[in-house]
Formats: sequence, C-alpha cells, structure tokens
Amino acid sequence: MERNPVITWKLKESFFEPADIASNGSRFLIGNGYMGVRGTLEEYKKEHLPAINLAGIYDQVGEGWREPLNAPNGIYTYVKMDEITYSLPEQTAKNHTMDLDFRHGIFSRATQWQTNKGNIKIESKRFASLANEHLLLMEFNVTADYAGVIEIITGVDADVWDINGPHYDKIDFLVINDSILTTATTHENKDQVYLVETISFMESQNMPEDLKINYQNTKKTKVRNIKFSAKPGITYTLHKWIAIYTIKDSINFKKDAEDLIIYEKQKGFANSLQEHINIWEEKWKTSQVIIEGDDQAMEMLNYSLYHLLSIAPRHKDGLSIAARGLSGQTYKGAVFWDTEMFMLDFFINTEPDVAKRLLQYRIDTLPGALKKAKEYGYLGAFYAWESQEGGFDACSDYNVTDVFTKRPMRTYFKDKQVHISAAVVYGISNYFNNTMDIKLIENGGLEVILECAIFYNSLLVKKVNENKFEIHDVIGPDEYHERVNNNGYTNRMALFTFEKALEMLQMISELSPEIKDRIAEKYNLSNLREQFQNAVEHLYIPQPDENGIIEQFDGYKKLEDVEPKDVKKRLLHEKEYWGGAYGVASHTKVIKQADVVTWLNLFPKDFTQDILYKNWMFYEPKTEHGSSLSACMYAMLACRCDMQNLAYPLFMKSASADYSGGGKEWAGLIYIGGTHPAAAGGAYMTVVKGFAGLYEENGILKATPKMPNHWKLLEFHVCYRQKKYSVIIKNQNVWIQEITE
Amino acid sequence: MERNPVITWKLKESFFEPADIASNGSRFLIGNGYMGVRGTLEEYKKEHLPAINLAGIYDQVGEGWREPLNAPNGIYTYVKMDEITYSLPEQTAKNHTMDLDFRHGIFSRATQWQTNKGNIKIESKRFASLANEHLLLMEFNVTADYAGVIEIITGVDADVWDINGPHYDKIDFLVINDSILTTATTHENKDQVYLVETISFMESQNMPEDLKINYQNTKKTKVRNIKFSAKPGITYTLHKWIAIYTIKDSINFKKDAEDLIIYEKQKGFANSLQEHINIWEEKWKTSQVIIEGDDQAMEMLNYSLYHLLSIAPRHKDGLSIAARGLSGQTYKGAVFWDTEMFMLDFFINTEPDVAKRLLQYRIDTLPGALKKAKEYGYLGAFYAWESQEGGFDACSDYNVTDVFTKRPMRTYFKDKQVHISAAVVYGISNYFNNTMDIKLIENGGLEVILECAIFYNSLLVKKVNENKFEIHDVIGPDEYHERVNNNGYTNRMALFTFEKALEMLQMISELSPEIKDRIAEKYNLSNLREQFQNAVEHLYIPQPDENGIIEQFDGYKKLEDVEPKDVKKRLLHEKEYWGGAYGVASHTKVIKQADVVTWLNLFPKDFTQDILYKNWMFYEPKTEHGSSLSACMYAMLACRCDMQNLAYPLFMKSASADYSGGGKEWAGLIYIGGTHPAAAGGAYMTVVKGFAGLYEENGILKATPKMPNHWKLLEFHVCYRQKKYSVIIKNQNVWIQEITE
Repeated sequence: MERNPVITWKLKESFFEPADIASNGSRFLIGNGYMGVRGTLEEYKKEHLPAINLAGIYDQVGEGWREPLNAPNGIYTYVKMDEITYSLPEQTAKNHTMDLDFRHGIFSRATQWQTNKGNIKIESKRFASLANEHLLLMEFNVTADYAGVIEIITGVDADVWDINGPHYDKIDFLVINDSILTTATTHENKDQVYLVETISFMESQNMPEDLKINYQNTKKTKVRNIKFSAKPGITYTLHKWIAIYTIKDSINFKKDAEDLIIYEKQKGFANSLQEHINIWEEKWKTSQVIIEGDDQAMEMLNYSLYHLLSIAPRHKDGLSIAARGLSGQTYKGAVFWDTEMFMLDFFINTEPDVAKRLLQYRIDTLPGALKKAKEYGYLGAFYAWESQEGGFDACSDYNVTDVFTKRPMRTYFKDKQVHISAAVVYGISNYFNNTMDIKLIENGGLEVILECAIFYNSLLVKKVNENKFEIHDVIGPDEYHERVNNNGYTNRMALFTFEKALEMLQMISELSPEIKDRIAEKYNLSNLREQFQNAVEHLYIPQPDENGIIEQFDGYKKLEDVEPKDVKKRLLHEKEYWGGAYGVASHTKVIKQADVVTWLNLFPKDFTQDILYKNWMFYEPKTEHGSSLSACMYAMLACRCDMQNLAYPLFMKSASADYSGGGKEWAGLIYIGGTHPAAAGGAYMTVVKGFAGLYEENGILKATPKMPNHWKLLEFHVCYRQKKYSVIIKNQNVWIQEITE
Repeated sequence: MERNPVITWKLKESFFEPADIASNGSRFLIGNGYMGVRGTLEEYKKEHLPAINLAGIYDQVGEGWREPLNAPNGIYTYVKMDEITYSLPEQTAKNHTMDLDFRHGIFSRATQWQTNKGNIKIESKRFASLANEHLLLMEFNVTADYAGVIEIITGVDADVWDINGPHYDKIDFLVINDSILTTATTHENKDQVYLVETISFMESQNMPEDLKINYQNTKKTKVRNIKFSAKPGITYTLHKWIAIYTIKDSINFKKDAEDLIIYEKQKGFANSLQEHINIWEEKWKTSQVIIEGDDQAMEMLNYSLYHLLSIAPRHKDGLSIAARGLSGQTYKGAVFWDTEMFMLDFFINTEPDVAKRLLQYRIDTLPGALKKAKEYGYLGAFYAWESQEGGFDACSDYNVTDVFTKRPMRTYFKDKQVHISAAVVYGISNYFNNTMDIKLIENGGLEVILECAIFYNSLLVKKVNENKFEIHDVIGPDEYHERVNNNGYTNRMALFTFEKALEMLQMISELSPEIKDRIAEKYNLSNLREQFQNAVEHLYIPQPDENGIIEQFDGYKKLEDVEPKDVKKRLLHEKEYWGGAYGVASHTKVIKQADVVTWLNLFPKDFTQDILYKNWMFYEPKTEHGSSLSACMYAMLACRCDMQNLAYPLFMKSASADYSGGGKEWAGLIYIGGTHPAAAGGAYMTVVKGFAGLYEENGILKATPKMPNHWKLLEFHVCYRQKKYSVIIKNQNVWIQEITE
C-alpha cells in the first residue's frame, strides 16, 4: 500500500509580527545534528536572537552558566537601495512571508517593501546540509521594479547572541579570494570555531557592469558591500556557502573547512540542494507517519518528527541530543532524561544507529557519572542531570532566580533527581530489547547498568527496626515537590535497574571470554548479585491505597487538595516559580508533570487496568502539565485505559508543542524557550504505542489499536531486531508486514 | 558570712520616650507565675501593649495563632483636671519616672504635668501578689498644687491588646457594691475569665466633700468617674484590688474571686504589700547571687533572676514556663526547650519544687507527645516544639512570614526539631541527679524517658550496606539550616536518651512492685533493652576532623565560609528571615546559635579540652547569636577552656538581655519581643557552672572556679540532694558549706 500524503509539509507565516521573532526562531529552525540554524531573518543582529547553534561544544564565562556555542553568524546579509536600508523589523514591509519546508529542511523568506519609486523584494532560502554536516547554504535574491543603486551587505557577524556570553575572547577575520575566514576563540578552553564563508554573485547573464565589492569591518563583523546599478525587474542572486568546523572536529579542521568550500562551490548550489533533498526523502521513507482522516494531526506530528530528524547526531560519536535540540542555549545545550525517556523510541524505530549513538554518549560519559556519585558520597554512577561533554553536570545548585528578590534560589535538580541514572538504564535496555544488538552491552553498556545499580544500592536506607529499603530525599519527575521520600516513580525505576543488572549478571556467561574477563576483573560479581537480589526483595514500592491511588511520595496525601487553576490565582508575579520551598504548588497536591502516571505508563503490568484508570483520574486534574514531557505520558496511559477521547487532546498538545509555538517560556526569570524534541518524541510514542498500541511479545511485533474515532488509517514503519516492518491500522484491523527492499 | 548587697535592686527610667513603650512593657514586667502584668502605664489603651498575661490558658480565633489570654485590664485608670486629661503619651509631661523594685516585684511610676495654673502629679505602684497568685493590687495618687475639679476614671478595659485576637466573644460587666465584676468568654472553648475589681478612695481624713462617683461604659470598658473638688497640695489616694480567676482554676471560681476581694480589702493594702515583700525576701535568701567587684553584673544577674522568680508556676500543677515568660503573647505563650535546657538549673538549685513542677508538665503532656509522634509516623514521644496545654503543639507549619511576598513560609521547626524530646529527658535526668527525688521518675518520668528513647529509635535509619545508625532530615539548635542529616547535637542527645533509658531499665528492679508491674505491663523490657543497646552501639556521632573540628551536620563544611557581618550585608530587607530555604545564612556556614558548642558544653568529657577550644574558636565567629540562648553556651564553654575574658562579655549579653532591652524583636514580619527567661537562666548557669565551676562528683559538690579577674567574691546558695549549701569563691578559693537553718 503506497499513499500520497495530503499534508502541506509547510510551516508558514504570512505577515510579520515583531512579538513572534523569538518563538519563530525556534519554530522555523533548520538543522543537521551538527548545527541548528534558527529561523531568523538574514538581517537580524543579536537582539533578535539569530543563532547557528553548535552541538557538543561548550563555554563558560565568569559565573554565568556553561552553555553551547553559537557560531559566528555567517548568513548575515542585508540590502540597501539608494542609501536606504530594507530590513525587518526596522522598515515596515508591504508583505512578508516566511516558510519552512519541513519535508526537506529548507527555510525561505520573501519580503517586499514599497518605496516612493516602486517595490523592492528580497527572497532567500537556506538549508543546513544533511549531506555534509559542516555545510550551511543560502540563496539570496533581490529584485526591484525600478532602477537604482543596490548594495548587498553580506558577511559574518561574530557579535553573536548569547545567554551567558560573550564566549569569544578573540575574533580574527581574514579575507582570501572572496572568502571571509573567521576564527573565534572561546574563553574557557581557548577552543576555536572556524568559519569559512564565500559567495558567488550572478553567475549568469545579468551581471551588472558597475559592480563593486568592498570589504568593511567593525570589531566583531566582517562584511562585503556588493554595490551595483540595478535594472528594473531583474533578480540579482547571491549564493553563500558557509563551512563551520571546530577544533574538536578534526586535526586539520581549518584546512578541512577550506577544502569543503572549494569542493562545494564547484559542485554548485543546485546540486548540493538536490543531494540534501534526496537524503531527506530517504529519511521520510522510514520516518513518515501517515494519518488518514486527520490532516492536522498528521501535519503536526510529521513536523515534530522533522525536528527530531534535524537534530539527530549522525556525523560523529560522543554526541547526544540536548533538551532544546539545537534551537539555542536554553537549558545550557545539555542532555537530560528527555533523550532516553522521550526521544529514544523514535530513533530505535526509525534510525537505530542514531539511538545507539545517543546511548553511546552515556557509556562514554560513565566516568563523569562515577565522579558525580563520589562527590555526593555515593557509589556507582550518578548521571548528570544536565549533561554536557564528558558527562559534566552543568546543572547549577541555583537553577532558578527568585522573581521577588532577584536572588538565585537553591534548587535540588542536580543533587536529588536521582532517577536520571535509571533513565539511562531504561534507554540501554529498551535499545537492546528492540535491536538485540549485543555490541552496545559489550562496549560498556553492561558496566553502565551495573554502576547504576551500584548507585541505587548505595542510596538505599532502611529504618533500623524495619525491613523495607527506602530511598529518601529525592525529587521525582514532578519537580515542584523537592526532597521527598519514597517517590514511587524513583523507587520503581531503581527496582527496574536492579532487575536489569541481575539480568546482565545472568547474561555475562554468554559473552565473549574477553568481555567476561574484563567484567570479572572489575567487579565482585557474586557480591553484586547478592546485593541486587536483596535490594529487589526489600525495596519499598508504594502500593495503591483503598481507593486504588498510589501516593506519589510519602506524605503527598496530606498536602492541600487544590488544582492548578487554584494555585495559579495565588501567583503574585506571572513569572514566579511554582516549586521550590515556597512556591504556590509546593505544599499542595498540584504537580508539574506526570509522575506516578509515568511509572504506570512504563510498567502497566504492575497493576490492573482499573488501578491505572483510577490513578489517571486522580492525578490528571492535579497536573499543571508545566513541562512538555507531561501530556504524552497521560495520553499513552489514557489509550491503555480505553480513553482515546481524553488521549487525543493531550496528544495534540504534545504534537503541537513547537508547531503552534507558545509553551512555558520562563522558569522564574530564566528564559527557557526553544524547541521541544521530547514533546515531539512523546507525540510519536503516543501514536505508536498509544493509538496503534504497538508492542512486542517474545520477539514478535503486535498491536492493540486504540485509535481516535476519526482516524481512518494509520501507517508507519518500524525497525525491529534488524528488520523493517510496515504497520498499518485501519478499522481496528492491524497489518504488520516485513518490508523487503 | 553575711553580706550587704551594694546594688540598687531598681530598674529605672527617668524620662518618657514613646519609642520605648513596647520594650519597657517587658522590662518593667511584674508577675507571680499566674499572671504577668506588663510595665505599662495605667492610662494605656491597647495600642501601647498593656497586658495582664495569664499562664496556661489559650484561645484561637480563625486562622490566627493559638495564643495565651490577656485578662481584661483591671488597672485601667486615668485622670482629668478641669476637663483636661493628663495621660501619656498624649500630654507631654514635665517629668516622668518609672521604676521597678525588682527585689520585691513592685512597679511604680510618677509623672508630673505643668499646666497654666500649676502642677498636677500622678504616682502609682502595683504588685502581683506572691502571697495569692490571683491578686493584683495598685495604689494610685493624684496631687495638684492648685485647686480644681479632679476626675479619676478607673475601672476595667476589656478591649485588650492581642496579637491574634480578639479572643473574647462576649464581655459582661456587673457592678455590685462598688465592685466591677467582669466575665469575659473566649472564642474557642467558651472559657471564662472572671475579674473582680474594687476600690477604696481616701480612707483617711481628706475625703472631698463633693465626691461623686458615676459609672460609665462602652461596649468593652466599664469605668467609674470619681469626681471631686481638689485642694492644693493634698494627695488623693485610690487603692485598687483586682482578683483574677478563670474557669480552669476552681469549680466556684467566681465566688472564690469575690471572697478573695472581700478578704483582702479588709486586710488592707499595706498589709498585703508587706506579705508580698516578705515572701520575696524569703526567695532571695536562696536565690540571690552576690558578686563583689562588679556591681553591674550583680545587678543585671539578679534582675534576670527576678524574672525567673516572677514567672515560676508555684500555685498549681500542669504549668510550665513559656519562652517569653508572662510578658505577652509572643511565641504563643508556649513552652520550648528553653525551659529544660536553660531555665531548669536555676530552679533545681534554688526551688526544686518549681523544677519538679516544670518537669511534671512534661509528664502530664506525654499523651500529646505520643500523639504527635504517631501523626508523623514515629513511635514513642515526640514532644511539642511549642507546647501549650495538654502538650498541644502550637507551632505552625508556616511560622515565618516572607517579607517580600507577605506569604507564610513553610518552616520545619515543628516537624524536624526532634531534639526537643531529648531536652525533656535531659531535664528529668538533671533534676533526678540533683535531687535524688525518685518520685518524679515513679510518677511518670520513667515512661517519658522510655518513650523518648522509643521515639529516637524509630527515627534511626541506616544505609543498607553500612552499619552505622543515622538520624536524617532534622533541624538542630541552629535553625538556619533546615532538614540536615546527622546534626551532631541531635545525634548526641539521642545517644544520651538511649543511655538514660538503659539506666532506667536497670533501675526498675529498685522500684516498688506496683511501679515495676505498671512498667512491665506496658513494655517488653528485654526487647527495649536490646534495641536501645543496639542503638547506643551503632549510633553515629560525628567526630573531630584532622583540625579537631566537629562538623555540625553532614555537608556543613562545604557551605560558603562567611561570617554573620558578611551575610548581613546581603539583606535586602532588614526584617527578612536569615534561614529557611533561601535565607542569607542558609547556604553559608553562618549559624543562628550555639549548636556543636551546646553539645560540647553539655558533654565536655566527650573530648579533650583542646577539641573544645578548637570548636569554640571555629564556630564562634560563624555564630550570629540571633537567639538569646546562644551567648551563655559559648560563655560556659569559654570558661571550661580557661577563656574567662571571652566568656565575660557573652555572660553580660545573656544577663542584660532584658535589663538593657533591645534584642531581636522580629522574625520575618512576626513580632517576637518580650522577656527572655532562657537568657536569664543561661546567665545564671554561666555564673554557677562557668565562673564558679560548680559540679558534682559522686554526690559531692565541688567547684573549679574560672572567675573574671575583677570579681573579688562570688556567693550563692544551692539546693543539692535535699540539703542547702552556700558556695563562696574568693581568690580562686572555694568554700562549699551546708546551711543549717
């Protein structure tokens, strides 16, 4: 069955609204896993948040947060005609459109200004090449319907937007053969970002006769002024090639960049674009989800998947995906549990190699996790809550600013959100179960699982006169309640970790002698087995009470019973933090996001459907959904409880997190805007695991569909244990067929 | 050796300063354990904080704090001459003095106003009888040096000052035979406070001929207008008798009050005053401390002891002493650890019966402590942090108001300050050791100690893979650091409790069969013995590090190393709370009050003098002394470390806490002014245990004096094991002699 998708594959804005500049920067993002290029206009300076956000390279200045680098802005371009500058938002346009072809990762804009002589129009498009991750290409057209002198000012603006910058202590420009070579040196580690920018102007017949090119520079920008007498109705076209490398990419990174530019310029813009499009088409063969009967859902969902595909690290090891993707520096470009718990399923199903790389990042950063555990007096692996390169935990002890005093507030995300280590174990286990790829286990996955179990074991406490093992003083997924005891989710995930570790210990005999020896040398296996077994037997897992409700943590039931709308009324400042010691939610039952429900969603077989249902009904009205991770968990569990009608709006909330923009943009005084790849992954999971009800049993894929009534057909492809399958659901009938290519 | 004290025994103000009205109300307090009468002027209405504060009777209105009652103000009196009212602060006086004879608990004032005809003068004195605790007497004189019509308005003002009132739903006045009978009915429990007020005017020759008495009333006041033509130079004298009873005092409390007034009026003012003075003189025989060579210290110290003597409950069981004595409603009139840890020593040494009564209060409130433990999921006895009648914990979960948001802040004094139970055990043990009075043990003291040990045992946790027992998530004496693990003081006090419980279990065999049976019926003694023994063996007690420093709690050392003056500079609001989650001290080493030093002071033999010294030197500069309990602990330990020069100013700080006024009057937005009996007790302990170095060894009193250089002689009496001793220190020589009366 082959179908033609009916959706537009376009995100579009048909007018210019200055208030949307920041959110559109995220919504119209393009990227290729190496760089994310915000959907901002070419003429923007840093106050409008343009960014070429780089993956996996960070810098810290002074006391500011350590955050990823934004490369010098190589697309920087604007136009003058007869001495007047035509740029937004300064000069009001006659009409303006911006669109993102999210099937192919191409950003376009078209803006027309009316002057007293006539009209001048700018059109551009750009893409971050999926064929070569270092490459960013742009086409820029200017057309006027009257004669005049046009100047195109284009080059590199290294005065980049930063949240906690500036990060470049030194910026050096060099101009060779029409190329601007920019070396930007960072503050903390003297890393270098190297950018080669070159152009071609009017390859064809209409080359203006009086063309003059002059270079101009300020301290942080280097631009050319391309000045010529323009004829009416002629479109003047500029192409830009931008190659970006950092010192972390290769030994000869400067030469590599220069060579790339020469090679690509020769190849020509159109050919590069076609290569890029072809790869995207290839990706969609596996990734596309077809929903017949709900164009809007299909459009939003595939737009969400576009974002995941745009930020997937494919070019090298040692990278994962940050919580805000490559949309900027919010959340410090750090990797959270979002990756393993919300994004991973999509990649396991569609690009298992990417999934493996994400997990390899956790294996590579095990030393950082061991170090963190030790610093807190624990054993084993305590993964970073906000993981940067090497597993460095970028999370601050003071992660929120008090809106009333402007003082940093002591938060405990880093110290107490111990469920992060279990998320890593869950990810590895999930990947292994779906791929049967033993390599990841052998290449360090095994040690990660053991070290995480050792970590939880060192957390366990017991009352001296009781036998149950408890975990105290943690923060669960619901971050509004700090330093609680026996958070159900955390305890259940620790139990899962112990069980997985025991399975691993069981499996060691099947591994190669070399691996067996390596493990036996590092660990006292019988001792570990005994400890983990003991933990499994005694670890306290909160159980449903007489009403079927599982208490989120010790004492939750005694908290004030109000709903989010009630506590919202108590806010004295729209941006004040709801959690912490004194937040409006802190001493109430109001929770930020799915907590018990996340547990039940991951381990539905722990209880009867009736218990799942009761807890959904109990917790949902108490949930702010203040995190983009929340809605999908409720949506999936709703499907499991046969409540598709309740699942659908929550699914749409997840699927539209970036499509519609908005969302929570502030935590206290900290800007947290950007894209929401975890919500995107959550929307995907809701479709696949929720509405399609896909699951595996004894190595066979099965599905129990729970589709919304108005969905006529649902179709997607999944990779499972080295094979590809097409899954089609129609009228509650299921077709799961292997795809042979 | 009999000596004449050289001190004045007078606290005096020689001018009127409106800003001092509130603090003078506390400084000039009189009391007799049943009532405390603030040192305010007769003419004051509630805005100037007059109060007849009653012991052990409480009321709550709405969401306000539950607090003790202020009785209707029976001393209310003011004067008019020729239609003009002469009262402070409204009418500026020519001269004004106020003094407190603190040897005899007599308050006096004298105020003279200049008019355009001459001068008019008011003089009054009052005392709360030590012969009968229900009795308050006043003499009020008016003299003018010119002729005119004088009106004395006197009666009962039931529109009383309250912090969280008004507490009287209903006020009924009745006038019978020149007496005003006031019945005030409380809100919460419909308790009745009954006040009989009567007067006599000019018993002697100069009775004015045109005397007229009219009664007037508003809703909450009932007064008589005594009007007459006054002759120049004649002093017109009014005597007032006020009897106060509450429904809790006796079945026929109204009749008792009426009978008392009849009896006392017959006896005459002068005779009652003499009785009162005689009892005070009797008290001082045992209580007085003589310091030769330092009049100021002697004056301040004995003034402090006056306060303790004024608030000691002698009239009935079921009472203890509130943290602010009987000076008002601050701290809810509740009993804190202050009583056992800071005030008890004075009473053990001077009035063991009062000490016993204070402890009997804790025995009586054991059911409340058992209930509180149960509510928090613990076993045994968790005493109230702010104990009202029946052991009800008046401490709010929201005990501080945020100065920035005006919201209540969640505090953990009630939930986490678990060292309170050990303070009760310490008190009982201290009393028993000094008196050898087995009755207190037999009458419930034994159960209290066992239940407190059971409580701590139920708090103990251990890491599953370690053997040490820990106590997590507490607040130590330093309240600025909330929810810490292994607070050294708390763990050490728990150890003490286990040891005392084991001693008690050992002692049971020596008790009467009846008691033995009672205990054996309630408890599995061998099981308790085993548990407590186990706890003693494994309980983790922090030890000095390589520099000799004992860490106050886990992680204290990692906190920012600053001093109180540094964090003070960070305040954005002068009244903001230093502790809590985000206070300026919370994440620094700055502490509110002696914590490790309190431990070392109570158990100096735990370590060498070198360790005591090093910890004193380490912690003192970090201590704000933001509680009046702090200085004496440092002073006593300083003596032990031979640093009398450092001890002396800290001693003076304790001794002058009320004498000089001032002190910390605010916690957030909550007024916490009032008297500081714990500081008074601490000053006493510093003299007796610190400077005199008094201790007992195998039943014999000994002393190792550490006197300040300028003290020539120190003398005081102490009760010890049913005998009285005189202790004299002079030139480092010690005389301890039994006193035979």
